Amino acid sequence: MIQRPRGTRDFLPDEMEKRRFYENTLRHTAKTFGFREIATPIFEESELFILRSGPNVLNELYAFKDKGDREIALRPEMTAPAIRMFVNEMSNDPKPIKIFYFGQCFRYERPQSGRYREFFQFGAELIGNANAYTDAEVIAMASSMIEALGLKEYKIRIGHIGVLRQKITEAGVPAERMAEVLQKLDKKLYDEARPLMQEMGVSESVIDSIFDLTETVGDSSVLSKVPGEAGDHLRQIVEILNAMGINDLEIDLGVVRGLDYYTGMVFEAEAPSLGAEKQICGGGSYTLSELFGGEKVFSTGFAIGFDRILLAMEKEGQTYQPEGIAAYVVPVTDDVRVKSSEIVASLRRAGISADIDLMGRKMQKAMKYASSAGVKYTVIVGPKELEEGCVTVRDMSTGEQQTVKVDELLSAIRN
Amino acid sequence: MIQRPRGTRDFLPDEMEKRRFYENTLRHTAKTFGFREIATPIFEESELFILRSGPNVLNELYAFKDKGDREIALRPEMTAPAIRMFVNEMSNDPKPIKIFYFGQCFRYERPQSGRYREFFQFGAELIGNANAYTDAEVIAMASSMIEALGLKEYKIRIGHIGVLRQKITEAGVPAERMAEVLQKLDKKLYDEARPLMQEMGVSESVIDSIFDLTETVGDSSVLSKVPGEAGDHLRQIVEILNAMGINDLEIDLGVVRGLDYYTGMVFEAEAPSLGAEKQICGGGSYTLSELFGGEKVFSTGFAIGFDRILLAMEKEGQTYQPEGIAAYVVPVTDDVRVKSSEIVASLRRAGISADIDLMGRKMQKAMKYASSAGVKYTVIVGPKELEEGCVTVRDMSTGEQQTVKVDELLSAIRN
Repeated sequence: MIQRPRGTRDFLPDEMEKRRFYENTLRHTAKTFGFREIATPIFEESELFILRSGPNVLNELYAFKDKGDREIALRPEMTAPAIRMFVNEMSNDPKPIKIFYFGQCFRYERPQSGRYREFFQFGAELIGNANAYTDAEVIAMASSMIEALGLKEYKIRIGHIGVLRQKITEAGVPAERMAEVLQKLDKKLYDEARPLMQEMGVSESVIDSIFDLTETVGDSSVLSKVPGEAGDHLRQIVEILNAMGINDLEIDLGVVRGLDYYTGMVFEAEAPSLGAEKQICGGGSYTLSELFGGEKVFSTGFAIGFDRILLAMEKEGQTYQPEGIAAYVVPVTDDVRVKSSEIVASLRRAGISADIDLMGRKMQKAMKYASSAGVKYTVIVGPKELEEGCVTVRDMSTGEQQTVKVDELLSAIRN
Repeated sequence: MIQRPRGTRDFLPDEMEKRRFYENTLRHTAKTFGFREIATPIFEESELFILRSGPNVLNELYAFKDKGDREIALRPEMTAPAIRMFVNEMSNDPKPIKIFYFGQCFRYERPQSGRYREFFQFGAELIGNANAYTDAEVIAMASSMIEALGLKEYKIRIGHIGVLRQKITEAGVPAERMAEVLQKLDKKLYDEARPLMQEMGVSESVIDSIFDLTETVGDSSVLSKVPGEAGDHLRQIVEILNAMGINDLEIDLGVVRGLDYYTGMVFEAEAPSLGAEKQICGGGSYTLSELFGGEKVFSTGFAIGFDRILLAMEKEGQTYQPEGIAAYVVPVTDDVRVKSSEIVASLRRAGISADIDLMGRKMQKAMKYASSAGVKYTVIVGPKELEEGCVTVRDMSTGEQQTVKVDELLSAIRN
């Protein structure tokens, strides 16, 4: 038996209906924020992802040569493709450009709970400006999306990569080794960060103060400890978000994000119910377009891990009820089958989801099937009733039956 | 500048909104027919596609080895994955199983008008039975989808592969060479089919009668020329489709379909506006599950070329009008910006698509932007009006302005 590839999933009807429902919840929320959907190809030149994330990304890429000997890769994320598209095709559009996207990404890694080789991301980018309002706009949208999905327990943590970068620079860490240090701090690997900085000649006390900074966590009152422009910027973001009705924020200067291209505000959202792999959303302000051959343009964006956030909702006990079929038409005898096809077609034309027995089931089996398939009304087409232009409608939830004229069937089912 | 890979596309906001709209039209129609959506991975073991289509498919596949040395391929179509999924996970579900799917497929070939290396298909499979009713159900759904999309000029041609196969078998063509002959006839390559059959010892007159059969085209009256069960079957399909209100059908025994696994009824839909590449839909009844290690189960399915049908609609002059933004909030001065953020957030929470100036535009520029962005109402937040709890609402289509209380803004915009 041929199996699907490891780390991938099939989505069966109930699961898929749920996923589309929540996908559309995200889409609707993005639209209320004035963001518009775009789509980019499933694969890109490998170079694109290397430029964004560094050559190490190759270890996790599904990269291959196409028949024209081009180095291509299945996308591991969609920010780089979105910005590539902006550079190629939207760079002259009026700013800000507010775009979002939803789709599959691919990462070759060991499959584990909530992590797949083919996974789904929702992401958004606000391109063209960077100020407290653009940052707040993006955080507000991420927050509204999580709310719209109905997740109860989650936390949004906002930091500023500039504060940490400045402190590390002042400590004497050379610019070209900044990324190394930040990556350790991103993962809270203090035991590895300390010898690394010692080796660069940073004193114990300065290292301690850097660690302290990454442990600066709390409500907006901790911003009093954050000096200069970065502090002002974060205070302003919080003020705007509060005005937008978003109050439940945590300031956390330990939010580092692993990538070089972030320039200022960075944020993450996490769902504690997920345990160790609790991050459901991450983003910040950045510039990336200049790496792909465009002009340097300030942007702010984020991505939501769709699989993980669905898992978090599930862990909280949230369930989705499939819509089911409104009507199921059962011909009692073979000679009313063609007429039954006519009836089911008229329901469908009216926009009603309607099925018809195609297996030649006898009445009892057909009713049993209707119960198990979540049918709301069974329409029984019998030869005698039909002679008088009637059919029998059975409400599957109450068991009540009524005989109605065929041309009044629509209203009987719609009420 | 990094470009997207050849034969792939980026979808910008207007195009993407249109595509999602029509994608949802197809989805809605499928639901009214009681079909439910599924999804399978973007890539599968290459073997899956070879089993379905033969080893020649490798020439057009994006096939590669993953880091675990598995032979995988980007899906060139979705029938094989859907049936693989059925065999793996749904084979014990009550029949018929009615599923549909929508997504990207990949084919490495020379890009040309309406054909891309990454293209989009909508498809459906009815699994578990094969009779005139299941065949009619599937053709009716394909027809209803084309209608729902609003395509005006199209033709559905229905044939029966069994008629032709029987005739070719009777002519003495060995079973193992049947596919060769059918492939030539599928493409109407009579000049190549003739010597091929001559070489197999088929006489001129029998060859002529086979060609004649593939040229048997017309309304249902031509079915009088089709003998036996196949003729009865097609007559019954036409009767059921007529009862379902689908009358505009052509019988065409020259509909061959290139693949071995079709067992009976085959059908295609074409849009003449597309010229040479006019096929927009194809399908038929088949068995495939036994090739993938499951039990043999009769199915009927079809696929619609989403890119091609959109192209056909475009050629007919059909246009899609993007929804635009309902409200655009413009702060007149910097000190009303935070309050403006509060206002835009309240609109969004009410489900209204609302944008806010994030570029610090002056009034005149902001109004110009609002016009070009398809905004319906501009909400002007001025410090004086705000002191009295008011804002100015401008209807961008009429130019009319009114001053409204902030807490009455919602109804002013909704009316």
